[in-house]
Amino acid sequence: MNTQLINELTRFLGDRFTVSDYERQQHGKDESPLPPMPPDAVCFPLTTEEVSEVVRLCYQYQTPVIPFGAGSSLEGHIFAPHGGVSVDLSRMDKVLRVSPEDLDCTVQAGVTRQQLDKHLRLQGMFFPVDPGADATFGGMVSTRASGTTAVRYGTMGDNVLTLTVVLPGGEVIRTGTRARKSSAGYDLTHLLVGAEGTLGIITEIALRLQGVPEAMSAAVVGFAEFDSAVKAVTEIRQVGIPVARIEFLDEVMVQAVNQFTDLNLVERPTLFLEFHGSTATVHECAQMAGEITHAWGGSDFKWAVDTEERNALWKARHNAYYASLAFRPGCRSLTTDVCVPISRLAECISETKQDLSESFLTAPLVGHVGDGNFHMLLLVDPANPDDHAEAERLNERLVERALGMGGTITGEHGVGMGKMKFMRAEHGDGALAVMRAIKRALDPQNLMNPGKMLPAL
Amino acid sequence: MNTQLINELTRFLGDRFTVSDYERQQHGKDESPLPPMPPDAVCFPLTTEEVSEVVRLCYQYQTPVIPFGAGSSLEGHIFAPHGGVSVDLSRMDKVLRVSPEDLDCTVQAGVTRQQLDKHLRLQGMFFPVDPGADATFGGMVSTRASGTTAVRYGTMGDNVLTLTVVLPGGEVIRTGTRARKSSAGYDLTHLLVGAEGTLGIITEIALRLQGVPEAMSAAVVGFAEFDSAVKAVTEIRQVGIPVARIEFLDEVMVQAVNQFTDLNLVERPTLFLEFHGSTATVHECAQMAGEITHAWGGSDFKWAVDTEERNALWKARHNAYYASLAFRPGCRSLTTDVCVPISRLAECISETKQDLSESFLTAPLVGHVGDGNFHMLLLVDPANPDDHAEAERLNERLVERALGMGGTITGEHGVGMGKMKFMRAEHGDGALAVMRAIKRALDPQNLMNPGKMLPAL
Repeated sequence: MNTQLINELTRFLGDRFTVSDYERQQHGKDESPLPPMPPDAVCFPLTTEEVSEVVRLCYQYQTPVIPFGAGSSLEGHIFAPHGGVSVDLSRMDKVLRVSPEDLDCTVQAGVTRQQLDKHLRLQGMFFPVDPGADATFGGMVSTRASGTTAVRYGTMGDNVLTLTVVLPGGEVIRTGTRARKSSAGYDLTHLLVGAEGTLGIITEIALRLQGVPEAMSAAVVGFAEFDSAVKAVTEIRQVGIPVARIEFLDEVMVQAVNQFTDLNLVERPTLFLEFHGSTATVHECAQMAGEITHAWGGSDFKWAVDTEERNALWKARHNAYYASLAFRPGCRSLTTDVCVPISRLAECISETKQDLSESFLTAPLVGHVGDGNFHMLLLVDPANPDDHAEAERLNERLVERALGMGGTITGEHGVGMGKMKFMRAEHGDGALAVMRAIKRALDPQNLMNPGKMLPAL
Repeated sequence: MNTQLINELTRFLGDRFTVSDYERQQHGKDESPLPPMPPDAVCFPLTTEEVSEVVRLCYQYQTPVIPFGAGSSLEGHIFAPHGGVSVDLSRMDKVLRVSPEDLDCTVQAGVTRQQLDKHLRLQGMFFPVDPGADATFGGMVSTRASGTTAVRYGTMGDNVLTLTVVLPGGEVIRTGTRARKSSAGYDLTHLLVGAEGTLGIITEIALRLQGVPEAMSAAVVGFAEFDSAVKAVTEIRQVGIPVARIEFLDEVMVQAVNQFTDLNLVERPTLFLEFHGSTATVHECAQMAGEITHAWGGSDFKWAVDTEERNALWKARHNAYYASLAFRPGCRSLTTDVCVPISRLAECISETKQDLSESFLTAPLVGHVGDGNFHMLLLVDPANPDDHAEAERLNERLVERALGMGGTITGEHGVGMGKMKFMRAEHGDGALAVMRAIKRALDPQNLMNPGKMLPAL
C-alpha cells in the first residue's frame, strides 16, 4: 500500500487507522470456510464525513476500499483479494432517530440488530428482519439479508426507506425519502440494497419498524417424513394464514440443536412456527395451522404461548448455525442458500438429501420454507481438501438443481466471492452485462469492494 | 421519420405498423392536462421477439421508442417530445401462466388489471395492486404504481418477481427469478420498476398473487374535521390493525362522488376502510377501527359486509377521478401526488387546503392516507391559461411543502414530463447524477422514451 496514503490516513484518523497485523487478520476473515484474505490496513471512522474523506483519499491513490461490519458474512464479502483499506463501520453505532408515529428510525451503519432491538423494545416497536447473526445494518442492507421472518415482513429490500451512501469519489448522496412509497425516478435504494459495497459505502439507513403485536405464540410440530412437513407449509401459505415464521429443521439439525441446547425434541423432521397479532388472531392462526399440520401427519403440535418457552425455542433455532459447528468439533460450514418456487421445494430438498446420503459429509439442514429458501450446512474440516472439494461438489449440484427449478443461487447470503462463479448461470450474459455496465458507470476505477459479486470477464 | 425505417417496419409488421394521423393522435395524449405530443408512427407488436426487432431497427436509425399501454398515465409518460415510434403493447394481452401453488403468474405487458382480475377470480386468487384506472401491467410496473391497497399489499415494486425486458439495442434479458427472494447481484427488477420505459421496454412480468381472503368487509365513517380523520388513521396504523384499504375523501370529493353515483353520503371529511382476512379477524379489526374512529369523533361507522354494498362503495371511490372531472364539466385535472411521512400528513393537508381556500380553482381531495399519499384534483379549463398557471402554482407550493416534510414529489404516478422539474429538489445533484450515469450506461444514444423523468442538464 502506498506510503503517502498511509501517512495521510494516519494524519486524518490518528489511532483509528492501523496497519497492525492483528487488525488486518481480524478483518480478513468471516464465517465462510474460504481462506482469509486480509486487507493492507483498517480504519474506524465515526461519521459519514470521515468515511467520505477516507474514500476520497483511497480514490486519489487508486486503492481499494472494503466496507466491514460484524464480519458475519458467509461468502467472503469482506475479504481483500486486491488489498486495500478495510473500512470498519462498527464504531458508527448510533441510533440517530426513532419516530413511533411514523414507525421508522434512522441508524448508523454499524448499529447491530440486537442493539436496535434493545433500543426499541421499551417503545413498543421492533425491526422485523432477523438473519440470525447479530449483524450490522450496513451488512444486512448490503447482502439484502432476510431470515426467519421474511415470510411475513419481507427482506431488507422491503424494510429500508433511505440510505446515505459514500460514492467512489467520496461524494455523499441520500437515496429515497421517508415517505412510505415513491415513484420519483430510478429506485437507487433498491439498487444499493444487495450491492455488497461494490457501488459505495452505506453509512446511514432509515428503516421501517413494526409495532410489537399484542400477542405472539410459537409452536413445534414433528413429522415422520420431511415432504409432509413441506406440503403442510405449502398449504399454510396457500390458505393465507399469516405466519410470522415457519422454519423447517431436518432430523440431523434437530439432533444438533438438542445437543447444543437443553431442548429435548424428538429427532425427526420438524417445523417451528410463530404467529403475531391480536390474541384472537394468533389463536385462530395457530388452530388453523395445527389442523393443517395434523392432516399432513404432524404429531404433537406443541404450543409455547409464554415468552420464556417461546424464546427458548427460537433461541435454539437461532443457534442452529453454532449447534451445527459444534456437531463436528473444529469444523467450518459451507452453507448453501438456494431459494426455489415453493411448488418445487419438496423435490429440491428430496434430491439434495439423496445426494447427501451418498456423500461422506454430514450436513444439518434448516430452511425458511415459507419462502422456498433452505440451508444445508456442509461441515468441513478446514485442513482437509477432500472435505472442501466434496462440499463444493454438493453445493454445485444443488445450485444447478435450484436454477433448473426457476430458483436463485442465493436467497439471502449474497454472492461475495463464494458464489461469483454461478452468476452467469442465474442471470445470463445479457443481465450480467447490464450489471457490469452499472458497476462501470458508478465505479469506473473498480475500487469499491473489487473482486466481489461480478465475475471477472 | 426516416423513410427507410418506415419501409422496414411496414415490411416487418404489415398493418400492425402505421403512420396514420388517427393512431398518432391517439398515442400522443394521456389523462394529464399537458398538451398532446404525438409520435411519428405507431406499432402493435404481439411478442417479445417483435418488440426486440422494432427496437433494434429504431436503434439502427437512431429513432426514439416510446412504450404505450392503456394511455392512462397522468404525467405525459407516453408523449413523444422527440418524435419516434410508439410501441403499443396492448395486443400483448396473454396471461401466460398461473401457479396457484406458488401464488404467482406471468403476464404479457399489455394485460390489464381488470383482465387479470377476471382471469384469477375463479381460481380463488387476486393481484392486490389497484391503481384505479384499468392500466396495463407494463404501465403499472413502469410507473411503480400502487393505489388503495398499498397500505396492506405494497406497491408494484413489492409485487413483481421477474421482468422480461428489451434493451435499447434489441437484446432481451430476464431480471430476477421466480424464487420469492434473492440476494444474487444488483436488483435489476427494482431498477426497471418505475424506470418509465427509459431503460428498456418491459414485455413480460411475473407477479406475486394473493389468495382471496375468507372475508372482506368495508366501512365508511364521517368526521367533522379532516384532521380528526387523519389522526384516526395514524392511530389505526400505529396499533397495527391490518387494514387492506384506508382512504380519505374530503367534503368536496364526497360531494363529487355523490353527484356521480347513487351514493348519498353526508358531505364531510370521510374515511373508507376495508378489511381482509378470516371472518373473525375481519370482525375484530373492524371493531377496533370503529372504536378508534369513534374516539376521534367519527360518527356513524357504517358497515358493508355484503359484497354488493361493498362493491358500490369502492366503485364510488374508484370513480373519484371521473366524478371530479364531471364536477366541472369540460375540465381536465392536474392531479397532485405527494407522499409524506404520516406524522406530517395532517399538517400537509391542512396547509394545502388553506392554499386552496385562497384560490379560484376547485379541487376535490382524495388520499391513500395510510401511506401518507394524497391527491388534489385541480380542475382546469383546458382553454384557460390562467387555470393552468394557478394549478401549477398550487402544485409547486404543495411539492415544496412535501419535500420540506421529508416526503416525495410523487407517491405513485411517476415523473413523466410533468414532474421532471422537481427531480433535482427531491434527489439533489449527487443522486440525480447517479441516475443519469445509469441512463447513459444502459441507453447511451438516449433512444428509450427520451425527454422523460430525468431533466435535461
